[in-house]
Amino acid sequence: MTATFEQLALHQRACRRFDPSGAVPDADIEKILTIAVHAPSAENSQPWEFVVVRSPDTRHAFAAINAARWRNGGAALIQRAVTPATFEDMQDGIAQGGLESAPVVIVVCLASDRIDEQWGASSIYPATQNLLLAAASLGYGTCLTTGLTQRSRDQVRGLLRLPAAIQPIAGVFLGRPARKLGPPKRQPAREHSHREFFGQPW
Amino acid sequence: MTATFEQLALHQRACRRFDPSGAVPDADIEKILTIAVHAPSAENSQPWEFVVVRSPDTRHAFAAINAARWRNGGAALIQRAVTPATFEDMQDGIAQGGLESAPVVIVVCLASDRIDEQWGASSIYPATQNLLLAAASLGYGTCLTTGLTQRSRDQVRGLLRLPAAIQPIAGVFLGRPARKLGPPKRQPAREHSHREFFGQPW
Repeated sequence: MTATFEQLALHQRACRRFDPSGAVPDADIEKILTIAVHAPSAENSQPWEFVVVRSPDTRHAFAAINAARWRNGGAALIQRAVTPATFEDMQDGIAQGGLESAPVVIVVCLASDRIDEQWGASSIYPATQNLLLAAASLGYGTCLTTGLTQRSRDQVRGLLRLPAAIQPIAGVFLGRPARKLGPPKRQPAREHSHREFFGQPW
Repeated sequence: MTATFEQLALHQRACRRFDPSGAVPDADIEKILTIAVHAPSAENSQPWEFVVVRSPDTRHAFAAINAARWRNGGAALIQRAVTPATFEDMQDGIAQGGLESAPVVIVVCLASDRIDEQWGASSIYPATQNLLLAAASLGYGTCLTTGLTQRSRDQVRGLLRLPAAIQPIAGVFLGRPARKLGPPKRQPAREHSHREFFGQPW
């Protein structure tokens, strides 16, 4: 973990196909989750729970859920919203086994008995971003997904035996990238920055 | 920005009182926002807009809104949820001018015409966490707040002249810390980690 934060953050991007021979030792997962739990949360409630899935059966079930959603309207919706290159990458990941090739899926959950749900997202996604950056700092690729947990919540709940108070929020696919990833494509910050009030250019 | 990511992430914590003599040059804000926009977002929609507030009038208005919410029930609710030390720090920040001493407030907004609102939180808070880490890497303290933007949305909308499609999501107070900050207090990740399914200990 010697890369500077700036190097890491400027190169982070989604990885949707993984090297099947790449191992993810428990020790790395522990480092990653330790960094995740240092994120801020509302009232320092730390309302996160992490379910680390390696089981091929569960990972296959996740893939089947995602692929079904893709076939049943998901692909068409997304094709209208993204570039052709992103669509192809998403299709490879969701419908052609790319995400299923990740040896680990970390499902980040909200313990809604520790903080009111209205403050849940602001307490879970900063930790999730820490998790993604920590994984990148160890050379792993990740893909942050929310469709699995938000659109197929009951199925995920069943597979992971989540109690009623535990809400699945995000599924992070994690492993060694199958191929070198290009740089992330982002619009310059300046185009989305305003001085004092909206519409006054930076 | 030479600190390793690990050093930064493990020491990040809320700062609620700032050095009034500490300047925040535009160039630093540009670096911080450039890192913010490299976070992931749903369908790479990049639905963020950043309003950078330096105006003393607007900052004072934010402080007044926060202080009123604190007096009108907020303090009592929070006192039941947090440790005495955190309560004192929050009271100093919210009701006694600590947060108002921040020379900059960055209001992070969601452009709900670029992504459906159900995917908004997962597209805004990773960028917000990047923003907090980037600020820390330059030596700034920050405090991520959501009460201002979620509980007083219409007032914030008016002050920042936000169009209907632009939703204020988070207010980040930013400046040089008034005093050296102690380490963040976090429960070990292991206590919130599960193997394969919820309840099976890591």
